[in-house]
Amino acid sequence: MQEGIGWSMERKPFVVETTFPVRYVETDAMGIVHHSVYLAWFEEGRSAWFRERLNDPRGYALVEEDGYFFAVTGVNARYIAPVRFGDRVSVRTWVSAVRSRGFTASYQVSNAETGVLLAKGSTTHVCLNRHGKVVAIPPHWAAKLLG
Amino acid sequence: MQEGIGWSMERKPFVVETTFPVRYVETDAMGIVHHSVYLAWFEEGRSAWFRERLNDPRGYALVEEDGYFFAVTGVNARYIAPVRFGDRVSVRTWVSAVRSRGFTASYQVSNAETGVLLAKGSTTHVCLNRHGKVVAIPPHWAAKLLG
Amino acid sequence: MQEGIGWSMERKPFVVETTFPVRYVETDAMGIVHHSVYLAWFEEGRSAWFRERLNDPRGYALVEEDGYFFAVTGVNARYIAPVRFGDRVSVRTWVSAVRSRGFTASYQVSNAETGVLLAKGSTTHVCLNRHGKVVAIPPHWAAKLLG
Amino acid sequence: MQEGIGWSMERKPFVVETTFPVRYVETDAMGIVHHSVYLAWFEEGRSAWFRERLNDPRGYALVEEDGYFFAVTGVNARYIAPVRFGDRVSVRTWVSAVRSRGFTASYQVSNAETGVLLAKGSTTHVCLNRHGKVVAIPPHWAAKLLG
Repeated sequence: MQEGIGWSMERKPFVVETTFPVRYVETDAMGIVHHSVYLAWFEEGRSAWFRERLNDPRGYALVEEDGYFFAVTGVNARYIAPVRFGDRVSVRTWVSAVRSRGFTASYQVSNAETGVLLAKGSTTHVCLNRHGKVVAIPPHWAAKLLG
Repeated sequence: MQEGIGWSMERKPFVVETTFPVRYVETDAMGIVHHSVYLAWFEEGRSAWFRERLNDPRGYALVEEDGYFFAVTGVNARYIAPVRFGDRVSVRTWVSAVRSRGFTASYQVSNAETGVLLAKGSTTHVCLNRHGKVVAIPPHWAAKLLG
Repeated sequence: MQEGIGWSMERKPFVVETTFPVRYVETDAMGIVHHSVYLAWFEEGRSAWFRERLNDPRGYALVEEDGYFFAVTGVNARYIAPVRFGDRVSVRTWVSAVRSRGFTASYQVSNAETGVLLAKGSTTHVCLNRHGKVVAIPPHWAAKLLG
Repeated sequence: MQEGIGWSMERKPFVVETTFPVRYVETDAMGIVHHSVYLAWFEEGRSAWFRERLNDPRGYALVEEDGYFFAVTGVNARYIAPVRFGDRVSVRTWVSAVRSRGFTASYQVSNAETGVLLAKGSTTHVCLNRHGKVVAIPPHWAAKLLG
């Protein structure tokens, strides 16, 4: 995955960590969490990032209320170790690249008890307006993403 | 659950059956399909019912395009036998009661190979307009539900 | 739903409340949380109940490690008000009936910000051993359920 | 994503297409199918591939019954166009690379009505035995994957 323009090298990214228990429904017949669930966890990590970054419990909902949507255009995950019901996971999330019309968020999921790294991944997003048209990220949101 | 007014005793309900394979993601760490998945299957049964009843592949989407929503206000399921990945299931769906502002749909889920009954259930629905207000089901949709 | 034998009237149940944010993936095209998600929330409430009751972060996983499974045999939910992404929900869980081979858990889901009641429901469970056979709940687990 | 050794250039891959309706539960508050659902669709495409390839309705369940698991180690998806409830999707699946201990499957998801390409992706898999140890794919399964 290309990591976009270089601002992320120039400054330390704003990293948010959120921790929650594995849900039984998230497991599959192999006895471990199903790989598709990590995308929901990435999203929950991203939601936690927005809550912290905007310093508001509604987080990304404020972006949508403002008339913008950061639609997912790509996803990438690598699974390193399995996790089971009874464990808790921590998701670390940061914005790893910002472009005029989109951004990339990156994630690390770990077992919250053991610290073992479970998965790494990223999602790419494009900014849409209310009409579903791709637009430049408005400056007040870009400023938040750029940290 | 109350079964509403008595039309369903007067005529044979319009029953639709749809069959599809169990998805791996639908299983859990007990090795069987998770109980919450049956609600998605009931919904898929209901969607198939609308596709058949309206004789249109878009089915219930036509109701929403017309400005009405049949929101779920209650659900009830009884699990009788488990099912696993590798099996196919059949969902039989019918409208078991119609009221002025809502209806009840009933479901039977079976193993499509063995015919074993897996679960029974029902969902109750209320008619909302575009503003989220509870309204009487408009006559053209009530006629379809009444079969 | 029948509430089983009368112990719950004789003593105050052990009630556990857990609070978490709505996930975006949990919403549907009506803009609100999909009704099937409440079953996952009930389960998460039940998991929190076991974590508290057993005073161990692994919670119900300890039951399974001991060779028992509390399989879901029925579910019942009534939806009262919708909830959206950006909100947090609280799930209150208690064991409302215990039988020799099973139990009933009850749930109330509220909007954590406003306190508005969103849904009520219950699940019935039967005790299985490792071979999937229905058995009496062993005394050490029954004691925990009985509170 | 690296595409592995060259056999796929030497022969035409065995491509399987499966078509099914969008489920309402798969949509999100943007009114479209949530990006994580495509991973379940890829998996359903892979399941259909195994059903066809093994000429058996149980498909990949036969691999697990034989004591092997093709665990997901990576996933990659690119989202091109949205899809809504009321539409049907087609998933085309093929094995794009085979290695001694794993393989890569590739996917294209289209709107079954319009033919519009919705998403492309791939998943990488590693072969585990019953003890969760990475092993070489046994020859009888490798032969099936190699087509």
